[in-house]
Amino acid sequence: MPYITLESHLPGITGLLEYRKDSAQPIRELTQFLLRGASSLSEGERELIASVVSSGNECRFCTTAHTAAANLLLGENETSTGVLSDIATAPVSDKMKALLAIAAKVRESGKAVTDEAIDTAKAAGATDIEIHDTVLIAGLFCLYNRYVDGLNTFTPTDPEFYTSLAGRIVHHGYTRLPEGYDHLKKTIPS
Amino acid sequence: MPYITLESHLPGITGLLEYRKDSAQPIRELTQFLLRGASSLSEGERELIASVVSSGNECRFCTTAHTAAANLLLGENETSTGVLSDIATAPVSDKMKALLAIAAKVRESGKAVTDEAIDTAKAAGATDIEIHDTVLIAGLFCLYNRYVDGLNTFTPTDPEFYTSLAGRIVHHGYTRLPEGYDHLKKTIPS
Repeated sequence: MPYITLESHLPGITGLLEYRKDSAQPIRELTQFLLRGASSLSEGERELIASVVSSGNECRFCTTAHTAAANLLLGENETSTGVLSDIATAPVSDKMKALLAIAAKVRESGKAVTDEAIDTAKAAGATDIEIHDTVLIAGLFCLYNRYVDGLNTFTPTDPEFYTSLAGRIVHHGYTRLPEGYDHLKKTIPS
Repeated sequence: MPYITLESHLPGITGLLEYRKDSAQPIRELTQFLLRGASSLSEGERELIASVVSSGNECRFCTTAHTAAANLLLGENETSTGVLSDIATAPVSDKMKALLAIAAKVRESGKAVTDEAIDTAKAAGATDIEIHDTVLIAGLFCLYNRYVDGLNTFTPTDPEFYTSLAGRIVHHGYTRLPEGYDHLKKTIPS
């Protein structure tokens, strides 16, 4: 049971964003900008950063949702599976390995990021703005993961829920999720 | 040295918010809403939540800045000193002790928040929205602390810097910090 009274048909972050729409709006806008705005990192790559951080924080709702979004954007599941298993051997570029490693460090603590991790990323071609955005996306998902689990929101177990949610965040973005989520109601126990 | 090229006279979060103004705007708006918007928690109490989280994350820039802001708002230093030393014996209400304890748990992990911690807060009179905002403020400062330290921004040691910054965020808020910060330049080694 969530620690506060949320709409019972809205699991995970969805109920929180409806609970307090005033705080939700800048969170949605920041997410849209970082994950969907113009960037030399693809949308799929940015969703992988969200997945790695959420997985490290053991936030099952966010991990499953953003892994599903990454898979939909990439058109396959092998990359996310590899990245969540072992960044060093995952089927991504050296630059992405270095950026994902930075994100994993940021998840632990900002102070865990080392000169060496940054040098590795820059040697692999990462730009300042790619490093900046990686750190900020990792920080944002440290917020999301704590928000979702810190208020004990409901985590659906039906994979169909996440497939549907991924479709929405891939095709409609983060800023204006349609209200209601009526088609998701069946996934929440009453 | 910061890991990316920032304006050399802007330490801590200030240089990051200038570096990428598009991502800064929703971060500023979320902070303004949570720390300065209408709330049954005072602005000083909300700054104490920011201080406790930043202190736990060992982010010296954010801890010093938000402790200075709390002190300015509360008109004394004893409360923040007590809270940063030991929440259980600090000179704050039982409700604030419970909310600060929740914030400290959220800092560790969303999953660290317990039924007992929530029950204690509710028994002390905390409302759903106070619990919600406490969790979200704690999450937001987990983002800020990682952003500031993950990019290795400069942390001034001159207390005057933080007194001045606290004056700005208390009197002008978080949304529209004046540009330039020229008066702060002296605090950054060239």
